Order: sequence, then C-alpha cells, then structure tokens
Amino acid sequence: MKGEKIMGTKNVTFTDSQIELAHGAGGKASRKLIDGLLVPYLMKKNEELADVAIVPMANNRVAFTTDSYVVSPLTFNGGSIGELAVNGTVNDLAMGGAKPLAIVSTLIIEEGLPSDVLEREVKAMGLAAEQAGVSVVGGDTKVVEHNHADKLFITTAGIGLIDERVALSAKRVEPGDKIILSGPIGDHGITILLARGELDLEADIKSDTRSVWPFVSKIIDIAGPGIKWMRDPTRGGVATALNELAIDANVTVELQDKLIKIHPAVRGSCEILGLDPLHIANEGQFIAVVSPEYEKPILNAMKEIPGGEEVECIGEIQKGERNIVIAHSQYGGTRSVDMLVGDPLPRIC
Amino acid sequence: MKGEKIMGTKNVTFTDSQIELAHGAGGKASRKLIDGLLVPYLMKKNEELADVAIVPMANNRVAFTTDSYVVSPLTFNGGSIGELAVNGTVNDLAMGGAKPLAIVSTLIIEEGLPSDVLEREVKAMGLAAEQAGVSVVGGDTKVVEHNHADKLFITTAGIGLIDERVALSAKRVEPGDKIILSGPIGDHGITILLARGELDLEADIKSDTRSVWPFVSKIIDIAGPGIKWMRDPTRGGVATALNELAIDANVTVELQDKLIKIHPAVRGSCEILGLDPLHIANEGQFIAVVSPEYEKPILNAMKEIPGGEEVECIGEIQKGERNIVIAHSQYGGTRSVDMLVGDPLPRIC
Repeated sequence: MKGEKIMGTKNVTFTDSQIELAHGAGGKASRKLIDGLLVPYLMKKNEELADVAIVPMANNRVAFTTDSYVVSPLTFNGGSIGELAVNGTVNDLAMGGAKPLAIVSTLIIEEGLPSDVLEREVKAMGLAAEQAGVSVVGGDTKVVEHNHADKLFITTAGIGLIDERVALSAKRVEPGDKIILSGPIGDHGITILLARGELDLEADIKSDTRSVWPFVSKIIDIAGPGIKWMRDPTRGGVATALNELAIDANVTVELQDKLIKIHPAVRGSCEILGLDPLHIANEGQFIAVVSPEYEKPILNAMKEIPGGEEVECIGEIQKGERNIVIAHSQYGGTRSVDMLVGDPLPRIC
Repeated sequence: MKGEKIMGTKNVTFTDSQIELAHGAGGKASRKLIDGLLVPYLMKKNEELADVAIVPMANNRVAFTTDSYVVSPLTFNGGSIGELAVNGTVNDLAMGGAKPLAIVSTLIIEEGLPSDVLEREVKAMGLAAEQAGVSVVGGDTKVVEHNHADKLFITTAGIGLIDERVALSAKRVEPGDKIILSGPIGDHGITILLARGELDLEADIKSDTRSVWPFVSKIIDIAGPGIKWMRDPTRGGVATALNELAIDANVTVELQDKLIKIHPAVRGSCEILGLDPLHIANEGQFIAVVSPEYEKPILNAMKEIPGGEEVECIGEIQKGERNIVIAHSQYGGTRSVDMLVGDPLPRIC
C-alpha cells in the first residue's frame, strides 16, 4: 500500500486509502485498483487480469471468465439479475471467441429474502441459459444476516472452447481497421437508472440484456482471424472499452458521432442528467475491430440476424500512437472521449 | 413455489416462504433448497448441482467448480477469507480428482473498506495460489454501498483436468470399502466461533485451511480407480458429507468414534456448546472411500507427507440399504449420526 513495493517483486501502486463506489464502476478508478493492487499480487509477471482468460488445456484453448452481479433493483424493464448473470458470462466468453459450454453459479442471499423472489431469479437464470444454449452445471449458496447483503448477489463463471479460427489481440489492431458496433447504446444503464425511481423521469426504454453469441458465431464464420479485437461495453460504456483498446493497441481510435445509434429516450435522459451515452453500460451489445475487407460482409450478415438490424461501422483505427479516442460530431467539431471517471450509476450490473 | 409444478417439467418442491441462514449452512435445509428449487430450474433432467462438475471437452474431462466466501470475521487464527477462497476451490477440484489449473475470482466490496484490508486479502489469495501451484487468471470487482455487504465477499471458480485414472462415483461404493479421513476434525469451525469473541471461551486452536491436492495426487498414484468417492467435509461437517454418501450410494456407513481424531480444544468447545464435532466445518481435510486393499498403502503414503500424520481409517461401508450413518462409541454404544439441521455456526466460510 501507499505505493511502496512489497515482497520485492510486487509493484503495488494503489494508494487510495479506502474503497469507494467508483472502484467498482469499470472506469479509471477500477483500472487503478486492478492494475495497482490485484494484478501485482495475483498475476504472474506479464499477465493481465482479463475479462476472459485463455487457459491452454490438452492442445485446446479454453476461455474462462467470471463476473459478480449486484444490480439494484433486482428487476427492471427488459430483464433481471438472474438473466443478466447468465448473459453477462455468456457474452464474456463470446468476446473471447468461445462458444459457451458450461456455467457455474453462486448465490449470496440476504436472510429473509422472500422465496418467490429467489425462485423468480433462478427461473430467469434457467431460461437465459436455455436460450443461450449453455448448461448450469454446479453452484454454491451462502446466506448472510439481514443488512449484510442487499437481497441477492449472483456470481457466474463460465468456460468455453475457443474457436480455432480466432486470433484476438489488441496487438494485432492496426490503422485502417474498422470498428463495428452491434446496435444502439445506453439502453441498459438508463433503464436501471429509471427503474430506481429516484429521478422524476419516465421513458419507454428497456435493458438490452441478451446473448451476443449468435452474432459472434456468425462473424467468426465470415472473418475468422480478420476479427482482431472484441469487447462488450458494459460498465464504463463504449468510451471506456475503446480507451482501453487505444492504450493496449497503442493507436488512436476515431469515431463518427452520427453513426453511433442511441435511442431518443436514452439521448434525452443523458442530456437531462449531464451524462455521455458513450459512458453508459450496455448488456447486449459488442464492439468488434476487423480488417477493412470484412466490414461490409459482417454488416450484411449481422443485419440478417434478428436483433442485429442496427449494427453499424462507427469508426476506424487511425495512425498515430496517441492512445486516445476522438469523436467527430456531425457539425464538424472534434472532441476527445475519455474513460469513465467516478461512478454516475453505481450497481448497474 | 408452494409445491406445485411449474412450467410442466419443473418439479419445484421447495415450500419455505423465505430464505433463512440455515439454507446456507450446508445441511438439511441447504439440500432442500438445492434439490427443491435450484436443480429443477437450472439443471437438465437427471443432472445434479455438484460441488464440482465434470465437463467433457475435446476428449478430456474438465472439472469446474465455484464457491462464494462470506466468512465472518475476515481473519482468524490460521487463515483469512482470501486464503480460504483459493484453498476451497483448489480442494473442490481435488475432490473431483483434478489438478487445479486456473482460478478466476470476484470481489464484492462494501464501500469504505480500508484498502489495507483489501490488500491483505488479495495478498493472501496470491500466496495461497502460489502454494497450491495454481494461477489466478481473471476476475471482477464490484463495490456496493455501506451496509449492503459485510466488508468483503470473495467468489472463486476453478478448472482442472481430471486425472484419467480417476473414476469417482457414489454408485461404485460397496460394502467392505474403507473410509479414510485425512486428519483431525472441527478445527476450522471452532476457530471461527472463537474468533467472533461472542463466547467466553479461549482455546489454542487454528483453522486447518490448506490445499489437500498433494495428498489427493499421491493417493491417485497409489489407488487410481480404487478411490471410489471423495469429499471435503466443509459446511455440515463429516456427518453431512457421509449422510449424503449413504443416500447417494444407497448404503449404510459405519464409523468408529475412537478412530476419529478431534483436538482436545475442539472436543471441549463442542461439549460446552452442545455441538457434535461431526457437524463442524473443516477446510483442510477430506474423506476418501476406497477399495479395502488400498487402505494400508494409502495410510502409509499419506503419513509420509507433512500434515498427513494423523490420517486414519475411521470406518467401513456396510451391507444394508439403510441410507444412514451409524457410529460405535468406544464404550460399546451405537448411535445414528444425522445431517446437520439448522445452522449453529453461520458464515463459517
């Protein structure tokens, strides 16, 4: 702690004295915590704590991932924590180029939770797993005293076999590569915000939670190693995901604002609240960076899959090792798009 | 809910109206929740929610497991939540006959947690992983508001490749098979109880948390498929684990009380508190049921491994499909040993 090196080889740089909500928001503070504290103690040299890890196993590459879900409220327009917990892990595997194979799950339950709430969420998990074509194969249940958890937290972990045609790496991203976004952004985050009822706002909007594997499976068939990088822009939104790409790939990411689809209700809510839609969490969208020759075939194929009609190429990788994301507005201006700082929307997933 | 069948094929039999601490204690109430609610919604027909699942993958058998840790207090004599979270998952894999290969982990943190507490636990996780010879390869961090979690919950999931010589199944257990217990029982549970300081008791006792893989690896070398069943007796203790065996294998399990090692401080604490040491959680012990010809070679080999000196054969599988566990006392009496009912020690792991 406090920046000194501990145990000789551990380069611990995390100096915040206590954990704040922002450390869990997926933006800058999260990255500080992960890179400054978790990676030094948990990882061997030159590894990173990935959303989805690649584990070599008997001549195969196994994708392995986990996420905890603490969303509040438990249910919202378009979904609930149980559905989110399954789809989120399915999507992390998909982002690794892996067909989801099996899921395990734990429940941390607050004492006194009505059983019908638990039943509703377990049912939602079962349905989401069935729809995603994956089995829940094991789990664990813990119960803690009243006020020692908030109703229900669900953690899922998943494994999948990585398609042999897949060769994802930020290091392979180069100028001219195209940035594909699967659909409109911000629906999930704004839906949660409205579901809390703390704001005097109403809007006809619902969470986009779904499995993105059908799309990913299709574009792997089309482009194989022509897909260089994928990410689901959950906490921290599209802006944070692309800033991480800009850093990891050592490039400049250039976006065209007018090509980024945002439902009017999301845009309106963001304007009222002073939020950037590019920072809002999504649970059923993904970004793929692909070689330019695959742009059109991928767009055409995704539009034919139900739910993929609004896919768009939103920008391009530029020359220049500036490690930033810039966006051109439809009125000719250019702005720098930063990672999420702070946590405008805690417990979004 | 309320016992009716839902969705045609779902045989939901869980009828308790709300979730109590006992549902997380690993005993009878937990089994009711799992079999009556989780399995019907989450599992395909004829599967069960196992401590460790076997996932077929490209001609291999992959072991896949997860557990959440909510132990209170976070630290105790002999260990802490971080160490427990790694060893627990390593041990679940070991119980499936799998060398631990990779772990992923999530942290659910209460806002305001001092960073040095988090650092201590992350460090403990790193050390435990190093000692167990396993890598932490990915993770997730969530932060919730004050009073919406109790300091820190850790969830780990692990994968491992199942040794090809291993053929574990309760169905293979038969009369005459020997029951091997790796060491003295109850240390972990009683240590946690004393660490809470709610009782006016002090005793020189510490948690037995450790990786049991070195022992399991050795006995697989010796007996291979001669090992028929293994289980780490955590929540619910040895009594609950063996009752589950008696049911799953459709046999009678017979124990000799005098062969079950219990440290005097554990025995004394249990006597004062009216607890049965056979119901107390362990975090560094395991039970193996083996063909009788392997009893002596396994005992001899385990005694040569540091920490294995107190291994003992504590009983035998009997004829008779009575699905019960009976214990003979050293004074000639015989008693029935039931599963844990209720939760005398909540949040033990």
